Formats: sequence, C-alpha cells, structure tokens
Amino acid sequence: MVNSTILQLHPDRLFPSDEKVRAIARNLYQQIKDLPIISPHGHTDPRWFAQDETFGNATELLIRPDHYVFRMLYSQGIPLESLGIRRQDGVAVEQDPRKIWHILAKHYYLFRGTPSRMWLDTVFHDVFGMRELLSAKTADKYYDEITAKLSTAAYRPRALMDRFNIELICTTEGALDTLPHHQAMQGTPMQHRVITSFRPDDVVDASRDDFVENVQKLAELTGQDTQTWAGYLQALRLRRSYFRSLGATATDHGHPTAQTADLSLSDCEALFSMCLTGQSSGAQQELFRAQMLTELAGMSTEDGMVMQIHPGAFRNHNPLVFQHFGRDKGADMPSQTEYVQALKPMLNKYGNDPHLSIILFTLDETTYARELAPLAGHYPCLKLGPAWWFHDSPEGMLRFRHQVTETAGFYNTVGFNDDTRAFLSIPARHDVARRIDCRFLADLVAQHRINEDEAVQLAFDLSYNLAKKAYKLD
Amino acid sequence: MVNSTILQLHPDRLFPSDEKVRAIARNLYQQIKDLPIISPHGHTDPRWFAQDETFGNATELLIRPDHYVFRMLYSQGIPLESLGIRRQDGVAVEQDPRKIWHILAKHYYLFRGTPSRMWLDTVFHDVFGMRELLSAKTADKYYDEITAKLSTAAYRPRALMDRFNIELICTTEGALDTLPHHQAMQGTPMQHRVITSFRPDDVVDASRDDFVENVQKLAELTGQDTQTWAGYLQALRLRRSYFRSLGATATDHGHPTAQTADLSLSDCEALFSMCLTGQSSGAQQELFRAQMLTELAGMSTEDGMVMQIHPGAFRNHNPLVFQHFGRDKGADMPSQTEYVQALKPMLNKYGNDPHLSIILFTLDETTYARELAPLAGHYPCLKLGPAWWFHDSPEGMLRFRHQVTETAGFYNTVGFNDDTRAFLSIPARHDVARRIDCRFLADLVAQHRINEDEAVQLAFDLSYNLAKKAYKLD
Amino acid sequence: MVNSTILQLHPDRLFPSDEKVRAIARNLYQQIKDLPIISPHGHTDPRWFAQDETFGNATELLIRPDHYVFRMLYSQGIPLESLGIRRQDGVAVEQDPRKIWHILAKHYYLFRGTPSRMWLDTVFHDVFGMRELLSAKTADKYYDEITAKLSTAAYRPRALMDRFNIELICTTEGALDTLPHHQAMQGTPMQHRVITSFRPDDVVDASRDDFVENVQKLAELTGQDTQTWAGYLQALRLRRSYFRSLGATATDHGHPTAQTADLSLSDCEALFSMCLTGQSSGAQQELFRAQMLTELAGMSTEDGMVMQIHPGAFRNHNPLVFQHFGRDKGADMPSQTEYVQALKPMLNKYGNDPHLSIILFTLDETTYARELAPLAGHYPCLKLGPAWWFHDSPEGMLRFRHQVTETAGFYNTVGFNDDTRAFLSIPARHDVARRIDCRFLADLVAQHRINEDEAVQLAFDLSYNLAKKAYKLD
Repeated sequence: MVNSTILQLHPDRLFPSDEKVRAIARNLYQQIKDLPIISPHGHTDPRWFAQDETFGNATELLIRPDHYVFRMLYSQGIPLESLGIRRQDGVAVEQDPRKIWHILAKHYYLFRGTPSRMWLDTVFHDVFGMRELLSAKTADKYYDEITAKLSTAAYRPRALMDRFNIELICTTEGALDTLPHHQAMQGTPMQHRVITSFRPDDVVDASRDDFVENVQKLAELTGQDTQTWAGYLQALRLRRSYFRSLGATATDHGHPTAQTADLSLSDCEALFSMCLTGQSSGAQQELFRAQMLTELAGMSTEDGMVMQIHPGAFRNHNPLVFQHFGRDKGADMPSQTEYVQALKPMLNKYGNDPHLSIILFTLDETTYARELAPLAGHYPCLKLGPAWWFHDSPEGMLRFRHQVTETAGFYNTVGFNDDTRAFLSIPARHDVARRIDCRFLADLVAQHRINEDEAVQLAFDLSYNLAKKAYKLD
Repeated sequence: MVNSTILQLHPDRLFPSDEKVRAIARNLYQQIKDLPIISPHGHTDPRWFAQDETFGNATELLIRPDHYVFRMLYSQGIPLESLGIRRQDGVAVEQDPRKIWHILAKHYYLFRGTPSRMWLDTVFHDVFGMRELLSAKTADKYYDEITAKLSTAAYRPRALMDRFNIELICTTEGALDTLPHHQAMQGTPMQHRVITSFRPDDVVDASRDDFVENVQKLAELTGQDTQTWAGYLQALRLRRSYFRSLGATATDHGHPTAQTADLSLSDCEALFSMCLTGQSSGAQQELFRAQMLTELAGMSTEDGMVMQIHPGAFRNHNPLVFQHFGRDKGADMPSQTEYVQALKPMLNKYGNDPHLSIILFTLDETTYARELAPLAGHYPCLKLGPAWWFHDSPEGMLRFRHQVTETAGFYNTVGFNDDTRAFLSIPARHDVARRIDCRFLADLVAQHRINEDEAVQLAFDLSYNLAKKAYKLD
Repeated sequence: MVNSTILQLHPDRLFPSDEKVRAIARNLYQQIKDLPIISPHGHTDPRWFAQDETFGNATELLIRPDHYVFRMLYSQGIPLESLGIRRQDGVAVEQDPRKIWHILAKHYYLFRGTPSRMWLDTVFHDVFGMRELLSAKTADKYYDEITAKLSTAAYRPRALMDRFNIELICTTEGALDTLPHHQAMQGTPMQHRVITSFRPDDVVDASRDDFVENVQKLAELTGQDTQTWAGYLQALRLRRSYFRSLGATATDHGHPTAQTADLSLSDCEALFSMCLTGQSSGAQQELFRAQMLTELAGMSTEDGMVMQIHPGAFRNHNPLVFQHFGRDKGADMPSQTEYVQALKPMLNKYGNDPHLSIILFTLDETTYARELAPLAGHYPCLKLGPAWWFHDSPEGMLRFRHQVTETAGFYNTVGFNDDTRAFLSIPARHDVARRIDCRFLADLVAQHRINEDEAVQLAFDLSYNLAKKAYKLD
C-alpha cells in the first residue's frame, strides 16, 4: 500500500487496469510522450515570454491565478479574502503568501479525484522535484523550495518553455490590445514560438458595460468610423490583419450561446445603432452577437483565420463574488447549449465554403453525440475542439472520445488545447491528454476495431499533427 | 456455470472484473462494510419503530408498498388489481396474498439487471435465509418461510433495526403531521435512533387540491393567522421548531422544478392571497413554490436546518392509474431539470451565507457534470445528494461519481440516502452503495490518481462520516 | 503487432478485455451467433428480392447509397459530385465508378473508430473474401474482385439472403405505395420472408410540399373522400388493411418531435381543412402531426399493428446539399427530444390499452435513463427500440443498455433493428449487436448480478425472440 505521505507519479497512471490493454497503451504512449507541445489555445501572459522575468512565490504562481483551485476551497467555506484574492473595493485581504499556502496544504485532500490534484502533483514532482505529498506537515518545505527555485534562472519563463519542450504557444488577446509583448518578440527566437489569437468579445458583446466605449476605442485604433456598420466591420478587419501580422492564425469567440443570425444589411445597421445607444435589450444583444458570429465567419472566409466558438458559459453567476472580486473567480457556470438550430443561419450562408474552418467547443456534454458529432461529421467547415474547461479531465476526455468518435471519427477533431493561464501545468495537462488518448486507442486495438499501427499513427496525430493542421500552424 | 435455481450472493458482487482492481475494492470494502448505517433520508413508517408490531405477510411487506416492483409488472401488462393494489373507488382487487406472491415469482425474470433484483435477492438471502432463486417453483416455499418468520420476535422492527446495525434513521413527515409516533419514542432508546424530517410540500404547493384546506389546518396547529403572508411564514417557523424538538435536522422539498424566486414583500403577499383563493394559475403556483424555496432557505439560515431539494418529478403521469389507485403507484416520471438559472434568485440572496446548507438531488443526470458539480464546486451552501430514485442503482451511482467527482470532489457530496419505505431492503441498499463507492475508489487507486490510504479514508467518509456531517447528525 | 495492411476479423472483436469476462462473452456469443436474422425494420429495396437481379458494381452498391460513408468524406472537404452523387439539377457528376472507389480507398483511414469501418470490413472479409485492408494500394484489387463477384449468381439478392441466414426482413413503404414487389412475391417462398411496413409520413406531414397532392392520391387509391376528416381517416384505415394483406405487422412514424395531441372532433376537422389549404403554419403542421400520432395509435388498437415512433431528426439541415442532391444525403441532424410531456395526450387516451404496442426510438440519448426507461418501465403499451442511427454502434449500444436496463429491464426492449438500405451489411450489423449484448450480459454475470444460465436465455431473447414477439412475427 502506497502511503499518502509519498508523492509518486506512477509511469502507468491513467492507463487501463487490464494488463494487455495497459501494455498497448504504454507502448503507444512511449512513442508520443516526448513530442513537442503545440498549445494552440490558452491564456498565458505574453509579458512572461517577452520579458522573461522570474515568477514570484509559490502562492502567487500556483494559487492566486488558478480558479480551479480557489473555487474548490471557497466551496468548502474558505473565504476568498483568506486566500489573498484581491478585492475590488480595496477591503484588506490576506497578504502573507506562506499563510495562504498553508490553507491549500491543509485542504489538499479536497482535490482527491480532481484534475487539479493531478496537475499540481505533476508540477510539484516534475518541475520542483518534491517527493512527499502536499499536506499541513510538508507545507513549509513546499513553500520554501518552490519559492527558492522560482528565483533561479532555470525557472524563468523561457527556460521553462525549453524544458517543457513547447514548440509553439498561442496567447489570447482582446481586439483592443496593441500587443506590445508580441511586438517586442518580433525578430527574436520567440517570434515564432509565441503568437496571439484574436478575441473580439469586448467589441462584439453589447451586454458589456464597456461596449460603447470599446467601439469608440476601436475607431481610435483603426481610423475607421465605427459608428457606422460598415466602418465597424472594416475596423474589425483591420484588427484581424494586425493580429495576423503578429502571427495569429485563429480567432476566439466566448459567447453565452451558439446562436447565429443572418440579417439583412438594413437590419444589421439598425441593430448596431441600437446597440451603440447603450440601451439595447437582452434579446437585441443576443441577436447582435448572433449576427456577429456570421459576420466573423465571413471574414474568416476572406482572411483564412480559424474560428473558435466557445459557447455556453453563464459568466459571473455569483453577484457577491463578482462585486467583491470581479471576473474569472470560479463563478462561471455551464449551461445547456443548443447547436443544431443555433448554427443554422451561419451554416446556411458559409457552411459549405472550403475556405472556412470553425472549431466548436462545448460545456454541455449532452451535445457531443447528439449534435456536435453529427454536425462535424457532415459540414466541411466544422471540427470539434477537445473536452473543455470542467471537462478537461480524464473522465471528461474519455466521454468526449467515446461519444464523438463513432460519428465524427478522429479527423474531425483537432488535438488538445490546454486553455490555461497556469503556465507550469501545461506539460502536465498535455500529458494527461496524451495518456487518455493512448488509453482510448488501446481499447480500440484490444477490441480489434483498429490495427496497432493505425493506433500509432492516430497517437501521433492526436498529440501533435492535428493541432498544427487545424490551427494552420504548419 | 452457476445454475439459475441457486440463490447466491457472491462476496465480490458489483466489484470490477480486473483482478488487481478487484483486490483493491475488496480490501476497501472489508474495512467499511460493517460500519453502522446512517439513513438520513427515507420513507419508513415511524409507527413500526414506535409500536414494534410484526409485519404481515410476504406480499404485504415486499410487493404492495414497493412501486419499483409493481410498476415493472404493470409495464408487462399485469393489472395492478391482480397485485392487490387497493382501488380508491372500492372496486374489488385480488385479496389472496399467496396468489399475488405467485405472480411476482412467475415474473421474477423481468427484474434481471435491475436494482430491485439485487435488493430483493439480498433480502431473501440475508434476512430470510433463502438459498434458491425465486421462481414459480419456489414461490410457495418463499411465501411460507417469509410469512412464518415475520411472525417471530426476531423479525419485529426494532430487532431488525439492531440486526441491520442501523444507528439512525430519518423518516419524512408533512408539515401538518403531529408526529405521534416520534413523540411516543421520546424518552425511550428509540428517541435518538428514529428522527423525523420536515416536508412542507402540502402547505407550499398551491397546485394541490387540498392546499387551501392545508393552510387552514396550519393555522389550527399553530395559532397563527395563516391567511396573512406573515402569519403563514410564522406558522411554518413554528412547525419547523416543533419538528426540531423531535430530532429533525433537515427539511425536504419535492418540487416539480428547481425554480426559485425573490419577490418583493408586496408581491409575495399578493401572490399568497391569490393562491389562497384556490383560483391561481399554473404559473402563479410555480412562482409561489419558487418564492417559498427562497423563504425556506431563509428560515434555514435562522434555525440551521439542512435543506434538501428534490426537483424534477412529473407526478402521477398516468391519469387512469391515479384515478383508480392514487399517488405513488409507479407512474411518476423524471423530466428535464435546469438548475443554473433556476437557483439563481435564491443563491443571489443566500448563496454565500455560511449558515445555509442545501443538498441538491436530480432525476436528470445530464445536470451532474454540466450544472450540479460546477455549482457545488463553487457555492459554499451547496452539496450534492447521491444518485436518486431511478438512478439509485449500480450504474446510476457510477455515473454520478464519474460525472461529479472531477469538478466537485468527494467532499461536496453527502454519502448515501436509501430514500425507501422498504425497510427490509435498507441494508441491501447501503451495501450496494458501499460496494460501488469502493469500486470507484479502487479504480482511482489502480489508475494511480490517489494513494490507497487516501482511498481508505474516503471509503469511511462516503459510507458514514459525510452523511453524519452533512445532515448535522453528529 | 498486426500490420495495417492486413484485414483480419478477430473472433473476439468487441468483447471485453478482461480474460474472465471475455470468456463469458465468448461462450454466450457461441450459442447465439448462428441464430437466423430477424430484420424487423429497414430500408432495403423490395425490388431486389422480387426480381433477384444482380447488384451493379462496388461503388454503386457500397458508396452511393450509404450516407454514413459519403457524409464522412464530405465532412473532410470531398465534393459529393466527385463521389458520383447525382445532382437534381442535372449538373454533371463523376461517372467513373472506379475513380470514385479510389477516393473511398484513399480516405478509408477517416473511418477509424466508426461503425462504418466495422461494417465495411466485415462485408469485405466475409462476403467478398478480402484479406488486405482497403487502401489506395489495394483499391483496384478490391474494385475488381467485388465487381466481378457481384455479377455471379451467388451474389444475387436471394442467394445472399440465404447465405446471410435472414429468416425475415421488413421493408418500409409509404402510404401511397402500391407495393408491386411485395405483390409479386405473393405465393412464392419469398412471401413470408419479405414483408412491408406502413409509413404514412407523406400523407400525415403537412409541412411537405407534396402533402396536399398526396392526400388527393390517397383518395384515388382508396375511393374515399379524403377532403373530409372522416374520409381521410377511413382512407388510412384502408391503406393499413392493404399493407397488412401483404404481411405488414407494423407502422413507422418519422416525426420531428414526439408531440401528440388529443383534440376534439371539430378541432380535428378544422385543423385538417387548414392543412389541406397548403397555407398552414408550422405550429399547425406540428399540431396536426401530433394529433395524427394519437389517431394512428387508435387505429393500432383496432387492427393490432405495432406502432414505431422515430422522432427527433432535423431533416435536410444543409440547404445547399438539399437543393443540389435532395433528401437523405447525410445532412439530417439529431435534435433534443422530449417524451414525458409530448406523449402524454396519446398515453392519456390509449396508454393502458392492452391492444396497443408502441416502440419508441430516440436520437437523444439523454432521454434513455431520464424519460424512456421510466416510461417503458410503467406503461404497458410502451417498449423501447434499440440504439438508433448515429447510435447504432458499439458505444451507442452499450450506452443504451447501461442507461435503460436498470429501470426498464430487458423485457421492455425489442431486440435489434438494422434500419439499413445497405443489404450486404445486415449480417455485420446484427453481429455487432449480438456481440455487444453478449458483452453487456457477460459483465452482469461477472459482477454476479445474474446467473450464467439467465444470461444464456437473455442472449437468445435479445438476438431473436424479442424481435419476433415485439413485432408480432411469430
């Protein structure tokens, strides 16, 4: 019996129990585990790579930015203030990073069975060389060793990027971002390893408090008259072009629903004008987002940018947490999402266009087999993104493959996204995905549904090739 | 090959097939299988424990009250009259319990693969010592042996409670119940082993034919003017207090949906008045139930009672069965249930209150990973009840753990509920839950996601500790 | 490692990995694998069996009619024109069957992990004796051998029917079909092996462009005044009677939703009149279909025909594909489907009628455990059809059994349907179903939930007996 004070990463972790299947999975994994990492969608800070400064302390790096971690602690009654999450109203919060670290250590048992536990254990073990499990007893040792190492050159962002074997990483920036860090990397070896993605939600979502102001800023950035529909669209085209000039190959759209629309020009103009008044209704805002997905798909047919659609999150569900701490504090909730009706207006217009490439994600797993796989298994423009967010986990990934593959096959999927701001966990996250894909493939081999050399080829494709191809990174 | 005439309960039943995983599961199970039973939610009759009378015959005990059993027989064309289910209109039904028993025996093959088969087999084997499978051939032997044993002292409710190692059992009573049986147990050793729970649906659900009358009775019981909103709420507070004085720590709410509301005081008063006319619309009744969930949550923040919400059953779906036989005759159907939007009004008001504890259940498994686990993994007041009703089964429990754990962890769940009126099956039901939890934990150990001694601790928590803690029974 | 150039059908394919469970599955399968095939629902062409002509070439037989195949190719950007799918506007498409065959061969890797891959491999191996996997390299060899064999007597429909051990096959014909091929088989040995099913969608679905015309044709065929509600219903009764005279025991209803209705006679008359104007709204058309399901259920109580309801397909989702190529081109999409509310009007009227037998199908797996199993586990008239269409696959079938069995048992299901127009794949499809059912049963045995001889009986029932009984074919 392995004692819980020991931190081990078993070489066969996440593989199937059956010896024969496990041997197949292990063999597949051995062949692809050291492939370079392609991270085509994520939220790391480009400043890290441009400036290559050291990361602060253990708490600053591993707790404060990770809403997977602090949402679980909050769910068990631990105030966010005690975890040092900054309050927007300036109320004092815990400042002592060691004290915060102790809270995580003491409650680390809460994460049993979660992906956070796996990611953190892998970071602790592989990145920081820890060999005891995190607990109240080992909290100080952890804090000291991690914080000490973070101050060394080997733990700066670029050194870690090499150590992690990251070939390419995409960050995500808003339409108004001037991309100073990406500009700073032009002409350096980083230029082709760190690229941006274009996420225009801030100038497309008229429900935001800052929408009107953002559209005004868009005018300033582009010299277009963004008070007219034509000028607004042209401004978006210019921003896309600017992002492309700094390496972007993809756009990203985080809408509450997958709704699309295909209105007449005059209806578009009227709706846009209404939204610019700041007085639009919820239904008008939804219709505007819907129309914009279609407009943006049209722009993708022009400039070839791959379009990522991430619908279905109910943002900032907890008003008290939002008011005190702001966005992205673990209070976003998935909601039921419909695709077959919602995407139809856009697909009617562009669904058969060979220049369009759309990657669909979901937080609603019921759509995998019912809607997404059948859609992606027919429309040439559609591919399916990997299991996302709450479903970026071993069970979540298995459900994705089990429910998608029989209808859409493997080649209407696009490999793995880590989608994270937790830079140190990127290798751990890709490793989980590679293990689970090898496990799934091993099952197909063991059930004699594919031959073993087909599985090898698929393992390479799922771990590396499909991501490069789908995001036009090759 | 085990012949089907033999009734065996294999010691490894429900464990995984793989030898190594099975060994882990078996080891975990050995350590927790004899823990006392905490039954924090169920529908046994408190009269049994207060009066300790003998149960009648095999049919009266095992068929007539068990709608899992007679709904399956009805689905295959067997009239409920032939099973002795009493008709409300007085039409004669089968009176011979032996004849009814023969119908079950002859059709026992219909239950293959169902949890009823497991529960009944365990009762037959462990409680009554049967060693042949129930069939037309063994029907008389079964009937005679069971009925004979039921007349002995060893088969009275209290003796069985000891034999079953039930430490504590909660019954469920309506708001108008005077709790005579719980009163009768005060001062006896039963006082702390049998407690009640407060289920106010009959005075909260204005769609019931008896709602207006029930609110009137509430006045008589409490001396409050329940024709006013304030008096009605005060009357509910008094009933809660009375239930607490007889041991209750929890309330229970069986609403058609999870809808909550947070209306102004004047809107509440107007809505309540409308409902008291008996002329309220379906929408008004839904809004009133919604508002009442929020009111009752508020009362829980005052008195600390744990709030159980069981939404999503379409009651009495079959009008002919309802007309002839009444409620609870196996014709309740699950329906699609939404939580993220529905709970928001209540959560906005009380979701961060450290005094509130809500246990959510569902009949709609699609909400496990999409809505319930994300909600419980954030809100401090929310925990998830176990797989419920149709999903209280090996596959149902596994789906629950597989879909909930990665996002909510184990410690946002509350152990097992048997939720049954079938007293003799309680050990069998808890045993299934314990086996399945050990199986799930063994898989995590075999995949090297947790250490084995963590699994041991979890097995104790899931089998015993979490239920006591969540229901404030310690 | 099995090289991918080799085409092998492993005798243990689709069985579980664990040796002990595999042995149980293998043993069950050995006993039922050679049972005759009952194909109670499908879309083969009765002309084949009536005229017994040779099938054309490999492409004409295996690609052009199989939308599972060409939808996958289309999803990867291969134009339907290049696959020889005929355009309705007469635009030229690829005519060279060998060239088309090469496209499939080159892209055969796309089907890895799909049921099409298994069905095709089985056809290639078992029916045509191929021993190398289909690939660009083997494309010509495949094309030549298959096409050559198709011209021989052994590959004519009736010879294959014998070779495939098909005891009985049901085709599906519209209400206006005069059934010439079924008539031609009367008095021949084929009469009792090939029967029809009655699918009246073309005269029931008022959203169809040809609805008004079809109702007129119904008058011509039956001599009834189909401009009146009574005449229309009587005409349907006459067509049902005609279909029954040629062997039909079942009807089939492919509605967009499961909605039923129970309107007054005058409302029915008014609604029907409205539909006959050709000016009815979408809502009126939906209500008319809903009412017609109830009317047709009523007719089933009279004439005993088994009623199959296949709801939830959004037909012809891609307007460009529909315009160019017409119906059934792989562009039908599943959509979310509700049953508990939708079926209630019909069930209120006929749900307890012992003469009614309804088989429900779904494309929305979320309803298996939530709605369908609870409904079928109560209503005597309801049974559940097997995993359908996109879910007719190993994973899909396992999900069906896992989610349905615990609540509905096995005996509220009806065995397997191949539902195919791909005649040569029928043995492969039934073989997959038999293997998966044996696998599921083996798991129940290994977990000691049923005895092994019960599993044997269930294997016979699921493979053969239940289909005959449910479709009244015995």
